[in-house]
Amino acid sequence: MPTGMAATGPHVLRKINAAAVLGALRDADDQTARVSDLVLATGLSRPAVTRALATLGDARVVESLATTSAQVGRPAVRVRFRAELGHVAGVDVGSHRVQVTITDLAGTVCAARRKVPPPNVSGIRLVELVLVALSDAAADAGIDPAELWAVGVGTPGIVNHQRGEVVLAPSMPDWKGVPLVDELRAWLGCPVLIDNDVNLAVVAERWRGEASDNLLFVHWGERIGSGIVIDGKPYRGASSAAGELGFIDLATPIDEEPPQLGDGLGAFERLVAAGAIHAMAMDRCDDGLRERLADGDLAPLFEEAAAGSAAAMSVVDTIAARFARGLATQILILDPQRVIVGGGVSRAGDTLIDAVRAHLRRLLLVPVDLRASTLRENGVVLGAIRMALDAAEERLSALL
Amino acid sequence: MPTGMAATGPHVLRKINAAAVLGALRDADDQTARVSDLVLATGLSRPAVTRALATLGDARVVESLATTSAQVGRPAVRVRFRAELGHVAGVDVGSHRVQVTITDLAGTVCAARRKVPPPNVSGIRLVELVLVALSDAAADAGIDPAELWAVGVGTPGIVNHQRGEVVLAPSMPDWKGVPLVDELRAWLGCPVLIDNDVNLAVVAERWRGEASDNLLFVHWGERIGSGIVIDGKPYRGASSAAGELGFIDLATPIDEEPPQLGDGLGAFERLVAAGAIHAMAMDRCDDGLRERLADGDLAPLFEEAAAGSAAAMSVVDTIAARFARGLATQILILDPQRVIVGGGVSRAGDTLIDAVRAHLRRLLLVPVDLRASTLRENGVVLGAIRMALDAAEERLSALL
Repeated sequence: MPTGMAATGPHVLRKINAAAVLGALRDADDQTARVSDLVLATGLSRPAVTRALATLGDARVVESLATTSAQVGRPAVRVRFRAELGHVAGVDVGSHRVQVTITDLAGTVCAARRKVPPPNVSGIRLVELVLVALSDAAADAGIDPAELWAVGVGTPGIVNHQRGEVVLAPSMPDWKGVPLVDELRAWLGCPVLIDNDVNLAVVAERWRGEASDNLLFVHWGERIGSGIVIDGKPYRGASSAAGELGFIDLATPIDEEPPQLGDGLGAFERLVAAGAIHAMAMDRCDDGLRERLADGDLAPLFEEAAAGSAAAMSVVDTIAARFARGLATQILILDPQRVIVGGGVSRAGDTLIDAVRAHLRRLLLVPVDLRASTLRENGVVLGAIRMALDAAEERLSALL
Repeated sequence: MPTGMAATGPHVLRKINAAAVLGALRDADDQTARVSDLVLATGLSRPAVTRALATLGDARVVESLATTSAQVGRPAVRVRFRAELGHVAGVDVGSHRVQVTITDLAGTVCAARRKVPPPNVSGIRLVELVLVALSDAAADAGIDPAELWAVGVGTPGIVNHQRGEVVLAPSMPDWKGVPLVDELRAWLGCPVLIDNDVNLAVVAERWRGEASDNLLFVHWGERIGSGIVIDGKPYRGASSAAGELGFIDLATPIDEEPPQLGDGLGAFERLVAAGAIHAMAMDRCDDGLRERLADGDLAPLFEEAAAGSAAAMSVVDTIAARFARGLATQILILDPQRVIVGGGVSRAGDTLIDAVRAHLRRLLLVPVDLRASTLRENGVVLGAIRMALDAAEERLSALL
């Protein structure tokens, strides 16, 4: 008997039908549905859906909800996907923060922990922080870390996401080759996937944000990078190194030799990333604001600018003008349908984005749809969760 | 009978087989083959190939060659695609030159004409020049222009190639809306297609050059623009405006307001396009070279630089350093597998490209494969011919 035929039969059909019913249930609002909804969504017969639900119930993937129908006749049984059956974690790790979020299989957040690494943190110490944050978050969620079904990790640098390797991380010189993925796999015994943080922020925009089919996503935080979506697919470049907006050099005068690219911040990051904004604000603003900015959070700057402070507004406008210069360069090359700005700085809100938009206008041949991400600073971790949920699917279907 | 079935039958089968045999013949070296080659290439039986060749012979698309075989047994009949059956034209039109090339259906050049427009030429006058050049080239090729099967046109600016319209042509303000395509269609009565010149240069690289599946092609001539190939497909952007490298601004100091984008050369073109190179050479070089550069051709500059002239070499190095800055910006964003530099300036040869390569090294995170186009200044017209040949296919298959 040919191999391809060996697996057919009633058993396989039952699995296929169960997977179809489960898929329809998970696509439904709040992941509950009536049998009749599932008949409609799957095109299966009512008896087939009922049999599939029995299979899913035996596997504890689905449960029936108590019916409260007061109508005469057969009560409309509602079924529910048991999203609490398993959990996944998303990790956002960089030299400035470690964020871990644990969700159920529906992506509903159960726990989140954040650690702020010390300055000049080593790669090994960062791995420890990730393990501690994961352990703490798991405790908050009431699970053992070893019960996680999958973990997704977002990190700066050029990542070979297929091999699970950090190829190059200019911002974190000793990060390349740090065995984060191996450590996590050994500890947790579940799939651990890694990708570039900005690529994951793009995944998050497509999952929970405002992505379009031809999208430029710009991460604007401690670092600057961008993710590109072309015809609905992430574009990574020939060496997984596309979108490195942070390294373009608009600062070195054209006939002077720019510094060799290497470790540390890129030229555009030195102009407008969070650290540059903070330094400019500390330089230009009065003591009151300087004190509020002392812990590194930029929110007070944007609040004062919005409230009309001339010094704060001058910082915002200088930064917006510089950022528009770099963004215009990338837009002239890619001609995207939409530009979404995410990352910590994008939380500044309308004051900053409006100023960027105004400066951008005179720099482009064709107008562009520019907006701030609605995901605030959670884009990377959300994308990591989405990646982990995709990995968890395999385990879920093995249950059927 | 369902519509899809109406056309089947021996007649359709004969057409399909004839098209398959013709395709195999045209793919063969010098577009000739023996019957046995065609049997092998198509998978059809020998009688089916023979019948297909009879059909193609009746349509005068194929002819038998006299056999010179001295072997005993059945002589090996060679057949040949009659590429001279029809002709197409490729047109490259810009404010600095009009180039028309006429080829047969195999893309073999029959005639080529070039006109140099007067300075500040109007759009209407350019259309006239195209008509004259086409007429002259047709005469050289021994055909009436009305016998052309299709014409392809390459032009600067943002072109909606589906509607056959120039949407925006910053370098030629009165070019937008000039009825070149309509004029040609009315005169010639054949399909006339138009596309952006740089996009056509990319088509040419893929046809006759050294394109890779993820390619950045940079046109470096009187204007600067780029064409992008991703996964083997041209990438045009959301508004057909991708690749506008010529407009990125690396010259305006970062905290000064750049000029509004508009008519005329873009900021990067003002730094390194042919005109800027010429002006710098006239400024820095001695009287002997200045005289040789008087007619605008840059070749003497690159010759003297290669021969060791310090002044000429200083121009080449300044220009190479500037060009590398802009190119690095685009490479950091796109991470292409290969970069091909075409256009008039790329004819300078190794002296210039080697200098660009040296400057580029320190500006990139990942090394890149950079090379000069092998198509010299003929890329656009070759791409226009390829587009016209594709349009001619329909007429060819209607003959069968």
